[in-house]
Amino acid sequence: MSGYTIAVVGATGAVGTKMIQMLEQAAFPIKEVKLLASKRSAGKKALFNGKEIEIQETTADSFENVDIALFSAGGSISKQFAPEAVKRGAVVIDNTSAYRMDTEVPLVVPEVNEEAIRSHKGIIANPNCSTIQMMVALEPIRKQYGLDRIIVSTYQAVSGAGVSAVKEMKDQAKNMLNNEPFEAAILPSGGDKKHFPIAFNALPQIDLFTEDGYTFEELKMINETKKIMSNDKIKISATCVRIPVVSGHAESVYIEVKEDGASVASIQDLLRNAPGVELQDDPANQIYPTPLDAAGKKETFVGRIRKDRDQENGYHMWVVSDNLLKGAAWNSVQIAESLYKLGLVKAKD
Amino acid sequence: MSGYTIAVVGATGAVGTKMIQMLEQAAFPIKEVKLLASKRSAGKKALFNGKEIEIQETTADSFENVDIALFSAGGSISKQFAPEAVKRGAVVIDNTSAYRMDTEVPLVVPEVNEEAIRSHKGIIANPNCSTIQMMVALEPIRKQYGLDRIIVSTYQAVSGAGVSAVKEMKDQAKNMLNNEPFEAAILPSGGDKKHFPIAFNALPQIDLFTEDGYTFEELKMINETKKIMSNDKIKISATCVRIPVVSGHAESVYIEVKEDGASVASIQDLLRNAPGVELQDDPANQIYPTPLDAAGKKETFVGRIRKDRDQENGYHMWVVSDNLLKGAAWNSVQIAESLYKLGLVKAKD
Repeated sequence: MSGYTIAVVGATGAVGTKMIQMLEQAAFPIKEVKLLASKRSAGKKALFNGKEIEIQETTADSFENVDIALFSAGGSISKQFAPEAVKRGAVVIDNTSAYRMDTEVPLVVPEVNEEAIRSHKGIIANPNCSTIQMMVALEPIRKQYGLDRIIVSTYQAVSGAGVSAVKEMKDQAKNMLNNEPFEAAILPSGGDKKHFPIAFNALPQIDLFTEDGYTFEELKMINETKKIMSNDKIKISATCVRIPVVSGHAESVYIEVKEDGASVASIQDLLRNAPGVELQDDPANQIYPTPLDAAGKKETFVGRIRKDRDQENGYHMWVVSDNLLKGAAWNSVQIAESLYKLGLVKAKD
Repeated sequence: MSGYTIAVVGATGAVGTKMIQMLEQAAFPIKEVKLLASKRSAGKKALFNGKEIEIQETTADSFENVDIALFSAGGSISKQFAPEAVKRGAVVIDNTSAYRMDTEVPLVVPEVNEEAIRSHKGIIANPNCSTIQMMVALEPIRKQYGLDRIIVSTYQAVSGAGVSAVKEMKDQAKNMLNNEPFEAAILPSGGDKKHFPIAFNALPQIDLFTEDGYTFEELKMINETKKIMSNDKIKISATCVRIPVVSGHAESVYIEVKEDGASVASIQDLLRNAPGVELQDDPANQIYPTPLDAAGKKETFVGRIRKDRDQENGYHMWVVSDNLLKGAAWNSVQIAESLYKLGLVKAKD
């Protein structure tokens, strides 16, 4: 059987397990899937298309004969092993923040800048979850009217912080509902000093703080947007907040368009026909996206599009997508599909 | 014993029960508290300063000899009984939206526009919960630098929709955690056609939709802000979202100040010394407000103050307060304190 040999690095994680599922739906032939993880997880098994695959420890040699390697095991693992994979002829699609702002590395949302992958030198970066869905929703508007400004406040799901964070939230919720003591050891950021409960709470910190009071998550949204849209001039600010949702990031997005002629109806039309977008925007019938509805789906859902009441060219909208799928695993597999479609990777065997 | 006779209308509700607690801390003498509710709740008992008080059915005659009547039993009850209370010589402090935009009725946040109560004609309106905390946080900045613009996205707690909505959220959460079927019959708005689960979800609808795609909750924030700040010119837009939190509304607020000279440090200084505000803004030590921390407290908490990275006079902040206390019961009792302090109500006996 011919086709790609695909490696998934971080195969037991929240994103890695979704990568395996998304690969089952990929529009390219797959000869073999290699599931890689830490030594601790080696020997465990996972299913791909109903077939049991044993998870192996990630080593440099794991990437021999691999055509495409999907990484989602943390930035330090990517830094360590992505060059090894490239050295062995694999194209790396990296879901960590390790290479996203590297000028040599394309940062790709296929609906927005698929052509950027042509310039890859072995590594292609998958943007941050909260950036991707916003790009999918805004690109059709940018293309038609231009964008001067974005102000976004996020409502981000706990699965973005991993399987253990979801477990902790559920344990906290159970204990709170039973009026029992609860613990917080993971959120807002595993790498930070203090931890706060997320169940029945909202935490205005995702990732660590930088010196100017923004978090790295907020800077990711700002800097990645500029890179993906190839626009250093766009005014963009973000406030990133974690809320007690399992999967499905939501975003309250305010934009100012550059050109005249936009209206709520014209923006709805653009999004109704946009790739990767599902318009859910009918307030009279209470149709709008919610995280619970979006979870498990690959689309980016947009609703509540309305004109700012004071700013001539200002619009507000509500953007929701499954952070583990379009925000991570599905976008990575889509990049692999683009590599295949554009003929940029030939299977080694 | 001398002092005011105070009526609480809606004494068994989420806000009414907090009004009774807040009256225990009021800075004026109280002779008697009359607890009023629907016929259904008549005969139940509640404690005020350790003394059991029987709840009575609200009738026009309930307001005989009442000095101040706090209403929080829904707009239609206020429309029906507030005029009866006024006719009998009581001053009404109304926590519903019934009279807020009435030009004859002052809309008051004591830290912001206490003097407005001098013009009352029997009814004083308590603003919407999400408006109040934003006003407390922004008034010190407005006073110093002026405000051109506000863009707010809210993260609102379920207790704002009443005791039954909180119970429903907890039931949904329990069932979801046990992988059992769950029901949704109340949120996003009891008066609307469809209902969606709020547990582990986020709902971008609070109150009903208006024809231009904004919800009434969003228009409350917009119109009440203009009235409280006596400024029709201010640009203001709101996106109101319900999240699975019991009590404590959070808000991601973006402002543009009018005058030069503002900085993060100067805004922090203003808020550090502002009435009703507690500054919690030290990102390096992960100090910022959260709903769980704010619940049960009377202050408005402000953190994450930072300069917009592109807009010269733009600032972002995170504002949290207990929606049942400063957002409702405590603000109402503060208005009663102002009436007492300014000598606007003489006890009848």
